[in-house]
Amino acid sequence: MKIDLNADIGEGFGHYKMGDDEALMDVITSANIACGFHAGDPVIMDRTIRLAAARGIDIGAHVGFPDMLGFGRRVIQADPVELARYVVYQLGALEGLARAAGCQVTHMSFHGALGNMAAADDALAEPLIQAIAEFDRKLIISVSTHTAIERAALRHGLRCATAFLADRAYDDEGALVSRKLKGAVIEDKDAVLQRVIELLREGSIRSINGKTLPMPVKQILVHGDTPGAVALARSIRQAIEDAGGSVEPVARLVQAGAGHA
Amino acid sequence: MKIDLNADIGEGFGHYKMGDDEALMDVITSANIACGFHAGDPVIMDRTIRLAAARGIDIGAHVGFPDMLGFGRRVIQADPVELARYVVYQLGALEGLARAAGCQVTHMSFHGALGNMAAADDALAEPLIQAIAEFDRKLIISVSTHTAIERAALRHGLRCATAFLADRAYDDEGALVSRKLKGAVIEDKDAVLQRVIELLREGSIRSINGKTLPMPVKQILVHGDTPGAVALARSIRQAIEDAGGSVEPVARLVQAGAGHA
Amino acid sequence: MKIDLNADIGEGFGHYKMGDDEALMDVITSANIACGFHAGDPVIMDRTIRLAAARGIDIGAHVGFPDMLGFGRRVIQADPVELARYVVYQLGALEGLARAAGCQVTHMSFHGALGNMAAADDALAEPLIQAIAEFDRKLIISVSTHTAIERAALRHGLRCATAFLADRAYDDEGALVSRKLKGAVIEDKDAVLQRVIELLREGSIRSINGKTLPMPVKQILVHGDTPGAVALARSIRQAIEDAGGSVEPVARLVQAGAGHA
Amino acid sequence: MKIDLNADIGEGFGHYKMGDDEALMDVITSANIACGFHAGDPVIMDRTIRLAAARGIDIGAHVGFPDMLGFGRRVIQADPVELARYVVYQLGALEGLARAAGCQVTHMSFHGALGNMAAADDALAEPLIQAIAEFDRKLIISVSTHTAIERAALRHGLRCATAFLADRAYDDEGALVSRKLKGAVIEDKDAVLQRVIELLREGSIRSINGKTLPMPVKQILVHGDTPGAVALARSIRQAIEDAGGSVEPVARLVQAGAGHA
Repeated sequence: MKIDLNADIGEGFGHYKMGDDEALMDVITSANIACGFHAGDPVIMDRTIRLAAARGIDIGAHVGFPDMLGFGRRVIQADPVELARYVVYQLGALEGLARAAGCQVTHMSFHGALGNMAAADDALAEPLIQAIAEFDRKLIISVSTHTAIERAALRHGLRCATAFLADRAYDDEGALVSRKLKGAVIEDKDAVLQRVIELLREGSIRSINGKTLPMPVKQILVHGDTPGAVALARSIRQAIEDAGGSVEPVARLVQAGAGHA
Repeated sequence: MKIDLNADIGEGFGHYKMGDDEALMDVITSANIACGFHAGDPVIMDRTIRLAAARGIDIGAHVGFPDMLGFGRRVIQADPVELARYVVYQLGALEGLARAAGCQVTHMSFHGALGNMAAADDALAEPLIQAIAEFDRKLIISVSTHTAIERAALRHGLRCATAFLADRAYDDEGALVSRKLKGAVIEDKDAVLQRVIELLREGSIRSINGKTLPMPVKQILVHGDTPGAVALARSIRQAIEDAGGSVEPVARLVQAGAGHA
Repeated sequence: MKIDLNADIGEGFGHYKMGDDEALMDVITSANIACGFHAGDPVIMDRTIRLAAARGIDIGAHVGFPDMLGFGRRVIQADPVELARYVVYQLGALEGLARAAGCQVTHMSFHGALGNMAAADDALAEPLIQAIAEFDRKLIISVSTHTAIERAALRHGLRCATAFLADRAYDDEGALVSRKLKGAVIEDKDAVLQRVIELLREGSIRSINGKTLPMPVKQILVHGDTPGAVALARSIRQAIEDAGGSVEPVARLVQAGAGHA
Repeated sequence: MKIDLNADIGEGFGHYKMGDDEALMDVITSANIACGFHAGDPVIMDRTIRLAAARGIDIGAHVGFPDMLGFGRRVIQADPVELARYVVYQLGALEGLARAAGCQVTHMSFHGALGNMAAADDALAEPLIQAIAEFDRKLIISVSTHTAIERAALRHGLRCATAFLADRAYDDEGALVSRKLKGAVIEDKDAVLQRVIELLREGSIRSINGKTLPMPVKQILVHGDTPGAVALARSIRQAIEDAGGSVEPVARLVQAGAGHA
């Protein structure tokens, strides 16, 4: 019963801050670091890498649209192959800074609108994943279940880590319920914790309609940019440990070889 | 009598073009590719890398200030350590795109105002070169003679390739004459060619005052963004070959091991 | 038989150029000047304003998405009210530079993807036009017929100038045929000129299916960023004058008062 | 004994926040609003304008370098005339948004490195102020005493409002002591308040060497982006009112006509 506690961090820009990264990094076991397109800059990336490394946290790339103004949350209808170049650029930039700091990048995930688009569209997911495979076949791809990104990653023989969003409802097929629908976001803290405990005990979650869904999860994703985020992350970690589980960086959980561990 | 013919390319941005890269790449043997800060973007970088690789041209990173509006030619008084992060970010981004395209980055050079500042200021050159050494000790640093960058690269045991700017005057100490001074830029094409031939034959050039300066040059830098640039590059290459020399990509000229070849 | 010859200009950025603005400005009678979001910058805007004023050309704002990398041609799914602020920001910036140069802004048009979206979507056109009306009710809105932007402008009592795209096919309802469909772009120069002459003589054009469409046009839009653009613009102007017509800046053609002239 | 309480606000960007603007706007009487170059964006500018207007606060433009990454605090060696275009662009953008919101812009000030450079350099201050005069001669220029900007504004017959930085030391000539020198920033809250009271009572302040300096001040500038900023602003306002003074928006304090009121 080991699981990775994962969060998006390094989302400041220049003099701007977003979230309490240092406090959050004391709780999580892997970090998705913004790469200067939707958030982050070289100085923040470097600092975040070093803070993560000092805590033994796995370092991942969080890649998004080139839209600082929209924080990467706005759909941009760009050519898929061009987007694949944007992704590799960001991966390379983070990997370069990590290498200069004596660290390794273990995983990556897609941010915001790019993540939503790539999750839903096989024609976009394919060139993105192909480019990532060309960049580094050892990168673990952080995915939600039942997404085009997961399918493409498996097709290319890349390793995936399924992430569970504890505060989001899933439908009967295991896909995330759209934020536009009622009940998509679970705001009650105790309900969120209960879902985590159930997942750890049963290996399954309950869909929005009450159906039991097996979910072979490797990561629990916590959010860092909301008030109370650090406290919730701590509660989730405590709940995992109280349930007899433990938290581990993602790369220790995803074995060598292709596909899901 | 082998020398590298080098140029700055990939300096477009989005829909904007700068210079006739494809024609120039038929002439040169190594390219310094803009990395998205002062010019270039991920799509142009990828395309330029692939065009260079198809021609057997050595691929280098051309790093600059984050100032697309000023084309990296304006001094920005930023913290040296922060600038070192900017440099590594750019190196990593280019290296990532090159790796995904199955290519290697062999060298790097500094663009515009960042280049001028780093050439003149040991306190800036030191953290920049230290960061490059941490990123990749195998990168060849393209330098002008008698610069802080050259000193720092040698201090850190990095390999340097001295570049000769055929259309620029040098002072008696072998440093470039400032563009602000009269005679700094040699506009007569025949005079430029004559300088190249003398350099190849004698291993030396004449300073602005007529003094003979030994110059152990590995690269001749040609400019791509001026009218007639491609024709001048062709003439220089022809002059080299007519003089019994040959052009070679930089990495073949700079031997393994530290310091100048 | 008076008509305005209109083009999008000032589309460079920093050291980057786009099109031969000065040559084109010798032919046209009104200009849509990029405002620093999809193209243009304060220095280019100022220079373009002064060049236009020196030639007696009407000065208009060409507003687009904040996407220099995509030249404003990529859809960005942003909030309509936020987009309205982007539009007013750009209008104000151009108006400020024009005022400082002793000039007036007479009209505006929407660029690229923002233009296409606003043409097709009443829910977007409404807040954009409302914001423009709040900014300056005297601005003439350059529109295509049968668009949401035209409807919104008329609803708000703003003056419109219908633009004819001489090299584009129209459907039987008078709307532009999508570029994705065959025959949407008319590449034969003579065919383009013939359409202009027919429009001037008959006040109508032929749809893609051969249907006669009355078209109360005030502007012919010529493109500046394609090879041969200036020559085509000159030919169109010549055709207009040969047909006994004349070219006039848009503000002289659109009378005071609301709606179409 | 009337004085304007002034602060720099609207310094967020996209999803990023900077300072507690709403709380600060309940205390101050005039605001310098960032214009999208060093901070701010069209949406934040619009919202800040409307919040200010609803409180009867005078609206000013806070113009800076195009350097969001450096928050406008880094020197950029750009051409003075080009910088003047940047300034007018920003002034126009804010004025456009204000006009669309039914408001007026009353004043402007220079931010960060641009402000420091323009304060120190007559050759830069002249084209900047000339451009502002061409844009709108009614704008009040917020200045520190003994600066190139003040001299240029008076030379061009523009109205100035001298701002007092309550937490900064002045030298015997009335110029700000450089932040690099010891004692430049007064961190003790009571000392700051004491300075304000002395200024109001005596019309003078004490220089860093204890010399009495007459200071015909119209504005007290409070900072919004430091912890405790709002509380300090409230204390300063209270001190003004306790001393029998009152706070007033700047445009009511600076009479019509040129020069200092």
